[in-house]
Amino acid sequence: MPSVFRKSHGYLRYLFSSEEKDLYKKFKIITGRRPNNIKLYERATRHVSAAEINEKGLKDSYERLEYLGDAILGMIVAEMLYKRFPFKEEGFLTELRSKIVNRESLNNLSKKIGLKGLVKYHKHGGAGISHKSVYGDSLEALIGALYLDQGFRYSKKFIQHRLIGPHFDFEELAKTTTNYKSKIIEWAQKENKAIRFEIIQSNEDARDKQFISQVFIDDEALEKGFGFSKKKAEQDAAQKSLEQLNLE
Amino acid sequence: MPSVFRKSHGYLRYLFSSEEKDLYKKFKIITGRRPNNIKLYERATRHVSAAEINEKGLKDSYERLEYLGDAILGMIVAEMLYKRFPFKEEGFLTELRSKIVNRESLNNLSKKIGLKGLVKYHKHGGAGISHKSVYGDSLEALIGALYLDQGFRYSKKFIQHRLIGPHFDFEELAKTTTNYKSKIIEWAQKENKAIRFEIIQSNEDARDKQFISQVFIDDEALEKGFGFSKKKAEQDAAQKSLEQLNLE
Repeated sequence: MPSVFRKSHGYLRYLFSSEEKDLYKKFKIITGRRPNNIKLYERATRHVSAAEINEKGLKDSYERLEYLGDAILGMIVAEMLYKRFPFKEEGFLTELRSKIVNRESLNNLSKKIGLKGLVKYHKHGGAGISHKSVYGDSLEALIGALYLDQGFRYSKKFIQHRLIGPHFDFEELAKTTTNYKSKIIEWAQKENKAIRFEIIQSNEDARDKQFISQVFIDDEALEKGFGFSKKKAEQDAAQKSLEQLNLE
Repeated sequence: MPSVFRKSHGYLRYLFSSEEKDLYKKFKIITGRRPNNIKLYERATRHVSAAEINEKGLKDSYERLEYLGDAILGMIVAEMLYKRFPFKEEGFLTELRSKIVNRESLNNLSKKIGLKGLVKYHKHGGAGISHKSVYGDSLEALIGALYLDQGFRYSKKFIQHRLIGPHFDFEELAKTTTNYKSKIIEWAQKENKAIRFEIIQSNEDARDKQFISQVFIDDEALEKGFGFSKKKAEQDAAQKSLEQLNLE
């Protein structure tokens, strides 16, 4: 490979060590593109427990890139779902997205694409801080790094064709979106509690249908939910009540 | 203006009514670009109370576009803050973003850029559903519409130079990021409660400093917080405890 030199300000400036060459290769395999600024990728895979404190008192670890990558990933997945399900409402899209972008699935994805072996952290951890999310967090940071290094178009491609496309079956996921009403009814039955849903306000005017439903458990009023149909108001009330009961 | 015709499939196809021409103009003034697909923009400004139900049983209103625009706005603001504050941690960036992108500020922005007058909804509302967020929601939907109609680069420019840049002073906002510890101490003093912070676990190993702080109010244990300094662990514990007390 002839390009062991990197041009900077017109000078051949830097001779890569074989360890560095190896790192370029590994990130290229994962992202599909040779890194321009390898430092971004190294930062994206460095947990704070393995980071030095820099001259600004900041640890040179992945948190800031994770913040950026999280926003990029959320946006691209939002667009994918928006386009894939043109006749589904935003509640459905939001729920589906949270099934795709959550700690567990990001951890799994990170392992699947081979990022796990590149993540650096110190295991002993101290103070009981969990390292459970370190791979998923690093994946988000990698997305942030890729965006800064390769731009929007390429990071979108990466997310669509390397991360999400091959690893999620939207149809399958769509089948299992939560039915909150069933969920709270099941819970109440298991706990031997009486549960009912009441429509406490409604407007059936065709142009402006709106309903408020409320959940009652053993005659105690729980949360209210809104919706443009009774069904939706009940789903909303059930979801909020599950949260109130810490069951969500 | 000669272009009252729109070319489609090689045919001059459509003669705009003066009302439609007016709408193109108004959206051009707001977004800086003449709409290609005006239907997107009309949808973005149509609350469900003013929407017809289409053949798929969906209301032709802004909710789906709002879902998309919300994600785009969040991402662009994340990037703006990431670049503007290179030495700030992700907690700071997250908090600053939520000051910029929240219901109240989006409502205000919507009015400032003149979107308010274009938003369509029915006032009587029924069922007690608030229309308070309709302008901000519609602004998010407009961002979604602009993204679909004009692409990423232009919608990014729009957000940076028309929405956020002229209307927010990052420096001022940064000065007022919340000090959660002060906030909970103030609250405790007002309520005549004893409050203390305890470091319940720590690792002062230079390479892996980590702390857990816990808030006690009248000797009752509230939430724990984590951090790589005592100060941060306390802030985290204070923030979580404020949430627990429904003060956040």
